[in-house]
Amino acid sequence: MTEAGPVTDLVDAAVGGDRKTLARLLTVVERGGPGARAVAERVHPLGGGAHTVGITGSPGAGKSTLTSGFVAELRADGDDVAVLAIDPSSPFTGGAILGDRVRMGDHALDRGVFIRSMATRGHLGGLALATPEAIRVLDAAGFAWIVVETVGVGQVEVEVAGAADTTVVVVNPGWGDAVQANKAGLLEIADVFVINKADREGLTDTRRDLEHMLDLSALDGWRPPIVETVATTGQGLGDLAGVVAGHRRHLEAEGRLAARRAERSAVELRRIVAERIDQRAGRLCAGPDFDALQEQVMARTLDPWAAADRLLDGS
Amino acid sequence: MTEAGPVTDLVDAAVGGDRKTLARLLTVVERGGPGARAVAERVHPLGGGAHTVGITGSPGAGKSTLTSGFVAELRADGDDVAVLAIDPSSPFTGGAILGDRVRMGDHALDRGVFIRSMATRGHLGGLALATPEAIRVLDAAGFAWIVVETVGVGQVEVEVAGAADTTVVVVNPGWGDAVQANKAGLLEIADVFVINKADREGLTDTRRDLEHMLDLSALDGWRPPIVETVATTGQGLGDLAGVVAGHRRHLEAEGRLAARRAERSAVELRRIVAERIDQRAGRLCAGPDFDALQEQVMARTLDPWAAADRLLDGS
Repeated sequence: MTEAGPVTDLVDAAVGGDRKTLARLLTVVERGGPGARAVAERVHPLGGGAHTVGITGSPGAGKSTLTSGFVAELRADGDDVAVLAIDPSSPFTGGAILGDRVRMGDHALDRGVFIRSMATRGHLGGLALATPEAIRVLDAAGFAWIVVETVGVGQVEVEVAGAADTTVVVVNPGWGDAVQANKAGLLEIADVFVINKADREGLTDTRRDLEHMLDLSALDGWRPPIVETVATTGQGLGDLAGVVAGHRRHLEAEGRLAARRAERSAVELRRIVAERIDQRAGRLCAGPDFDALQEQVMARTLDPWAAADRLLDGS
Repeated sequence: MTEAGPVTDLVDAAVGGDRKTLARLLTVVERGGPGARAVAERVHPLGGGAHTVGITGSPGAGKSTLTSGFVAELRADGDDVAVLAIDPSSPFTGGAILGDRVRMGDHALDRGVFIRSMATRGHLGGLALATPEAIRVLDAAGFAWIVVETVGVGQVEVEVAGAADTTVVVVNPGWGDAVQANKAGLLEIADVFVINKADREGLTDTRRDLEHMLDLSALDGWRPPIVETVATTGQGLGDLAGVVAGHRRHLEAEGRLAARRAERSAVELRRIVAERIDQRAGRLCAGPDFDALQEQVMARTLDPWAAADRLLDGS
């Protein structure tokens, strides 16, 4: 998988509409390493047309049902949609594929919907690096919308969902007490709030709570709308699709989308540089030079800072 | 403070017994940067004689009183003792100095006891890097014992206390339910367990709980003794001093101390390399080269991994 040939063939097939090959390509990306690197090089020039939507919120907020219904709304306009379900807690994605079919059962026979779970496969900072790469693959494959759904509101998940063009934060009536801890983080990334399970008690308080938080926030030309939904019955999903489309238009006006993507690209590039450097540090700290310098430190002929400098200068 | 001259003078004065200068030197170390680097270079060859004792445990376990009493036991043998109180939650140590005097009031007039609080001063990974450096300064100043006391059982605090020659973990009767979360981490670093406030209910259960945990652990030639104390009355503190001295003798036999310090030194050196590399990454990601490469990524003429490689190769 490290030679250019096979990767080029895979990318060509995936771009041509071969869904099985697309799935294989995403597995390569998920694994990281030289294979993923070759895919990145090949797909990068092909993308740019997709709009990404991140959907995040506490477990149990009803995100999966909401995502399924939201995808149906997008499909109603004839657009192809890809869904990436991000699950940092799962070490492998293999088992999740069947789960995807079940949970997204409504779309199982629709060729215009592609569903895929992503996990870390154990490499550090994996999802934060692999997700944008997977998005570029789906982008190159021609999907008009890429929906990134996270399972929970952990740091990586909020980061990943917040790196979308439009980020939807899903809460429930009464959420205020439940997710106190990450409120600020969620508020910061939200372009749209959804109060799902809006038929439950506490809706008015939750809306007031969100409005109050927004009143206190520094908003930059866009006040996140609050959409009320009952995903299980479909109530409010049309409103959500409309609000997301409205945010897309807002971004596309006056170069805001380009600015936002530039910012995100800088964050990603910094992250890749850090990852590369980290790999280099791992190599430096495992060789014979390291052992020799450490012995000098132990013998007190060299202080540890000087030893570190020699190790780095000699690299 | 970056020139060799003033640092050499400070180190000479501190080694000569000037406590005020010793305090100034520790402030330089705490601040990090070139000043700390110069101090490290100067003190590194001078140390090696001190035995370090880490004392950690949950807030409220009675560590300060225990430390004060333990120091009195060490002093009774005529040895000079330094105490480093590690408080990662405090952004500055300035205010802690008065606090030190109050809490260690018993030793305020004793020139053979030196007490100092350490905090991060805001730099990342600060305490994990600054503490071993501060220990080397105190070691060079000739203290026979250096006691490192942490306020809580956070990750950094456990790391710092666990990096001592002898690590004492303080619990209370009934601790089992209270600190479930970090039990494994504490068990891993403990050379000695203290059940402080041993006059309280639950002592028997707690001892049985600890013994059971030790039965299940892979012990490497040393089974951590369990000492019962009531620090406020002095009960058991003589036993603690005896057990710690026993562990010191155990380590000094058959080269175990050297092996342990070599391991610790390797961890520290890796950490310093990581810190240096991190600084380099920060510089790389803030210059005009970064901006130029990122523009190429945005224009899709270069993929982000290739951009990162160019940035690193050009560094």
